[in-house]
Amino acid sequence: MTWTLARRAERLNPSTIREILKITEKPGIISLAGGLPSADAFPVAAMREATERVLRDTPREALQYAASEGFAPLREWVAAEMSSQGVAAEADQVLITTGSQQGLDLVGKVLIDPGSTVAVESPTYLGALQAFAPYEPNFVAVEGDAEGPLPEALAAAEGARFLYLLPNYQNPTGRCLSAARRKALAARAAQLGLPLVEDNPYGDLWFDEPPPPPLSATAGDQAVYLGSFSKVLAPGLRLGYVIAPRAMYPKLLQAKQAADLHTPGFNQRVVHEVIKGGFLRQHVPTIRARYKAQRDAMRAALEQHLTGFARWNAPVGGMFFWLELQAGIDATALLPKAVEAGMAFVPGSTFFPQGGHENTLRLSFVTVPPERIAEGVAMLARVVKEASR
Amino acid sequence: MTWTLARRAERLNPSTIREILKITEKPGIISLAGGLPSADAFPVAAMREATERVLRDTPREALQYAASEGFAPLREWVAAEMSSQGVAAEADQVLITTGSQQGLDLVGKVLIDPGSTVAVESPTYLGALQAFAPYEPNFVAVEGDAEGPLPEALAAAEGARFLYLLPNYQNPTGRCLSAARRKALAARAAQLGLPLVEDNPYGDLWFDEPPPPPLSATAGDQAVYLGSFSKVLAPGLRLGYVIAPRAMYPKLLQAKQAADLHTPGFNQRVVHEVIKGGFLRQHVPTIRARYKAQRDAMRAALEQHLTGFARWNAPVGGMFFWLELQAGIDATALLPKAVEAGMAFVPGSTFFPQGGHENTLRLSFVTVPPERIAEGVAMLARVVKEASR
Repeated sequence: MTWTLARRAERLNPSTIREILKITEKPGIISLAGGLPSADAFPVAAMREATERVLRDTPREALQYAASEGFAPLREWVAAEMSSQGVAAEADQVLITTGSQQGLDLVGKVLIDPGSTVAVESPTYLGALQAFAPYEPNFVAVEGDAEGPLPEALAAAEGARFLYLLPNYQNPTGRCLSAARRKALAARAAQLGLPLVEDNPYGDLWFDEPPPPPLSATAGDQAVYLGSFSKVLAPGLRLGYVIAPRAMYPKLLQAKQAADLHTPGFNQRVVHEVIKGGFLRQHVPTIRARYKAQRDAMRAALEQHLTGFARWNAPVGGMFFWLELQAGIDATALLPKAVEAGMAFVPGSTFFPQGGHENTLRLSFVTVPPERIAEGVAMLARVVKEASR
Repeated sequence: MTWTLARRAERLNPSTIREILKITEKPGIISLAGGLPSADAFPVAAMREATERVLRDTPREALQYAASEGFAPLREWVAAEMSSQGVAAEADQVLITTGSQQGLDLVGKVLIDPGSTVAVESPTYLGALQAFAPYEPNFVAVEGDAEGPLPEALAAAEGARFLYLLPNYQNPTGRCLSAARRKALAARAAQLGLPLVEDNPYGDLWFDEPPPPPLSATAGDQAVYLGSFSKVLAPGLRLGYVIAPRAMYPKLLQAKQAADLHTPGFNQRVVHEVIKGGFLRQHVPTIRARYKAQRDAMRAALEQHLTGFARWNAPVGGMFFWLELQAGIDATALLPKAVEAGMAFVPGSTFFPQGGHENTLRLSFVTVPPERIAEGVAMLARVVKEASR
């Protein structure tokens, strides 16, 4: 072709997960692969009422071009919500984004030069790797344990543009950082002058008790925080937000203007209309209860079918189980057999910036109901046991 | 601060227009600055009905994560619409974007390396310069005349990654490329192996006759085409599209996934619901009639108040007049006085990749009704005449 691609295009690659999702969208497949929230939890009635009100009361404003920063009352709501979590943010530090994926892209655009270092957990959220990769960083994986990245391992990240962390019910491992680990990490990062990018799409999805406060609560201007409405309302609205230090905010805002001018004002106003009276205080507990029951169903099924063939920790929130199979079993090679058997998962190695860990996989328990979860895990177990012989 | 910004952040700058818009959002100011479509033209009733239907019939699908490519029926609609304009596009070449501004960002991300050349009209759309700039190109301005860029001037663009063109009722000049000029440009670009990025947000807003066919109709795989629903429906929905050669499409798609996963499915379904039965065939003519009357009002006001003090060509479509004042008058210096007098415009030099042309300015005739247009132009004339003494 006559077109010359930019060098960074080499770092753009098909999303493994999206490719898997396509294969597994065949009717009948029990997909434990995607991180799709349960559609049963979408607040359709509230959405309908809010949409009616917005199109009745402020249609011209909702359908017109709007401020790149976002809808002012929504920014104020976010700032108040964050303050209640201990993060001292004001509305002028809030940038509304087209999903929190866009927040990751803007952070990458403003902070990453070709060849600069970006520190990540290992494994880490694939969407973050994909957002950052086109800006051509070198990823450094920070070693960790069951409580999260190790403070003493942060030295390896010194000089990095930032450390990307997903502390609550991480995608893909489900891991939640302990309060002590958060404090130790924030302190060590401050010593090293290592800025933090804290991503929190799942923090509201706790089952028994809320997670410890965000690292951003103590990190001050050394942290950028990303949040999302995708998991507590609905992902199809594409609404997220970034909270940024005042010195960095203008550059993120300019990157936002260049990227899509502004997030749809219609969506912002509808969501604000839904949540402004405290709707989430009633709604989110129903999601927690639903997902907790589904977590329980998956744990029971795993115990029944995969004890001795895999290891896992039951997550205390979020959407995912992380399985480690016997060494030598390749989850990627297992996937076609699983699909043939009638279920799907995501192989774990895709979440590691340097690959490897072929014997790991991710299961989502939020998309399908408990009886289908049990069925899907049983199918997986048959395939795993066959490969373990 | 402890943060190190990427080098490209230097190329991110506040949008002059958005800064002006903020100043001029004071109540009472007659703003001829923004390119805001008339809110009177927003199809609020149709939007309300479509939203109700989508939330009644397919709420789960509309609120769930969706394909990065876009909503299949909307992609098919776009492909059919393009074919009717002579551009042989199929649905699998259509990528739905979060406004056509995102299309510009994705094109820049996939095609521009630091230091590579991007050829543009002079003046050109500011939003395109802002989308491309962070990818650190060198802009080359292609010389033109009243009919558009000159084919013989394209040699200066040889080796450029692409030539960015806005052929219909250009922002900022209102200029529409003649059919002969389009053909000559496409032929010369083909000879030079110079790919085209054709942006067409305003093409449907013609007043007496449709514009000539897009350059993409003859350029085949040598063109990327960008379209938008912002001007024919409403910008607050943020819906645009890119039509790309098959060899490039996967990279744009991957860039889209990294940027925001997908454009809000809710918005895509609502818009498809509005337009699928032929709504635009009745609706767009009402916008054309409205804007034509407003164009006439601005032309009459300019003739009455500014004859001898400025030069302009009456646009035959779109949203903008382009004024050239006497040499030596600086429109940027004039702006505060105009705002004091009660009106606003956009200084022209911001649209030139290399600056200069301080004696030019852009007036939009679509945002305010005819009587306010006349009033605003009279205010402008007083300020211009004072500066011309």
